[in-house]
Amino acid sequence: MASLWNTSNPAMADASDPFQLPNIPKFKVALCQLSVTSDKNQNLDRARISIKTAAEQGAKLLVLPEMWNCSYSSEYFAKFAEDFTNEDASPTLSMLSEAAYCHGITIVGGSVPERDHGRLYNTCCIFGPDGKLKAKHRKIHLFDIDVPGEISFKESDFFSAGDQTTIVDTEVGRIGVGICHDLRFPELAALYREKGVHIICYPGAFNMSTGELFWELVQRARAVDNQLFVATCSPSRDSTGSYTIWGHSMLIEPSGEIIATAGHEETIVIAEINYSKIQLQRKSLQLDEQKWEDIYKWIDAHELSP
Amino acid sequence: MASLWNTSNPAMADASDPFQLPNIPKFKVALCQLSVTSDKNQNLDRARISIKTAAEQGAKLLVLPEMWNCSYSSEYFAKFAEDFTNEDASPTLSMLSEAAYCHGITIVGGSVPERDHGRLYNTCCIFGPDGKLKAKHRKIHLFDIDVPGEISFKESDFFSAGDQTTIVDTEVGRIGVGICHDLRFPELAALYREKGVHIICYPGAFNMSTGELFWELVQRARAVDNQLFVATCSPSRDSTGSYTIWGHSMLIEPSGEIIATAGHEETIVIAEINYSKIQLQRKSLQLDEQKWEDIYKWIDAHELSP
Repeated sequence: MASLWNTSNPAMADASDPFQLPNIPKFKVALCQLSVTSDKNQNLDRARISIKTAAEQGAKLLVLPEMWNCSYSSEYFAKFAEDFTNEDASPTLSMLSEAAYCHGITIVGGSVPERDHGRLYNTCCIFGPDGKLKAKHRKIHLFDIDVPGEISFKESDFFSAGDQTTIVDTEVGRIGVGICHDLRFPELAALYREKGVHIICYPGAFNMSTGELFWELVQRARAVDNQLFVATCSPSRDSTGSYTIWGHSMLIEPSGEIIATAGHEETIVIAEINYSKIQLQRKSLQLDEQKWEDIYKWIDAHELSP
Repeated sequence: MASLWNTSNPAMADASDPFQLPNIPKFKVALCQLSVTSDKNQNLDRARISIKTAAEQGAKLLVLPEMWNCSYSSEYFAKFAEDFTNEDASPTLSMLSEAAYCHGITIVGGSVPERDHGRLYNTCCIFGPDGKLKAKHRKIHLFDIDVPGEISFKESDFFSAGDQTTIVDTEVGRIGVGICHDLRFPELAALYREKGVHIICYPGAFNMSTGELFWELVQRARAVDNQLFVATCSPSRDSTGSYTIWGHSMLIEPSGEIIATAGHEETIVIAEINYSKIQLQRKSLQLDEQKWEDIYKWIDAHELSP
């Protein structure tokens, strides 16, 4: 398992195929909008129950919120952080692995604080239905904001940034992963699209200010501009922490339409994903073929490296 | 004037400065949502009156709709097209030049069919308050769509595509120009942002299907992702042509909020632009500084050329 993490993300290596429908093109996804407390064990229990409930309702892919095992507050990040080098020594990874295996479900494990060589990362672990860790994504874009009189927060004071994009091939499609503020950067979503991603999952915890302004807008934009599915999963508003969370976990289809959404309370959103809608959109309006590479171009900077 | 058009766009040459507020950071913009008929002279008269009315209401920047001198229908494009080599021989350019000069106003002249060496282009001409043509933008992304049973249209059957981005320095800021389907491509807006554009003007004529799904969403996304102003101007719904037009010309501020919008009827939207809102957004949330060029990168392909 360790080799997965100390090299560049292996999921990228086999992610260069053109668009293909996965073996399971139609299935249920669950977005577990959990209420997060300052009691880690309680958070783990809550998530375990939520995963079980979602699986019983037929979900094959499940997304957890950003920072679901830990209050979103600087006083908890270091205290709640786990070293992922040994999965068995990490209560959070053990629980996710076991739950994925027991229920035969793919889990995009929201995010939790990870400790690695004295640094903290805001990290999402993705498990397959065999209980194995398939990849992890460290939040690339840390949330530093300063709106005088409204909100001032500097995530980079506490966390180090990831430097890898994350694409995972699963039974339920090729999944791109981003965490919260990663959603604000169209470049990341465009790279995922180019690599044949079917759905981008963004665990996130927008606040009352950025939530109202941007949350729905940017996820719909990522879906529409890239003609793919977008799923977001937030903690519920009554979570403890240093700021009030917007909630409203959502599933967006390639046309930009909202298939399902939560309110701000704790809940599980269950909705159907049908990847043939990607083909439908791309056949009607061939955005990819209409791009002009002699005028502008995306570059995956990692591909420029030797 | 001819040299302006037969070389690559000169407005790009001096467009490499970082973000600066223009001399006039706060002013009124007018979006003239015109009803377009199959009578060209009537369309010219209508536009002339609309420009006069908007100027009298204090507008310093004015945007006209896509295809405002010509019904949006294949039977009219060639018939209504004008050769722009000699401005005096073009009734449309003459009118725009005179109106800009008379009212001391910057005009982003929507779009009209242009004939050049046997080809047709969907072209926007931009005039300064001195009546001079400052630049022209030929629609880059032609609108080819095929939704069986709903809409099938292939603009590339009639028009050739432009191959240049267009940035114009004016008294009322650095303006990026796109036409209709150009709006669907985040790459173009991102390039404009990198070149210090304050506002992107998109004359456009989305239809009832793409209008409802995408029109508002994508322009708000361009504004929010690039933290700049976006103005769109559409013909009104009662325009004649081969399909029904959505309307809803809009001005969007850098936060993504809609400052002003038309309905679907013929009207003039007058709204205030305050460029300090760009600085406010960019200071609060420094998206530009938070991008990771070692992970992804935009390339202006023209800059790669010798």
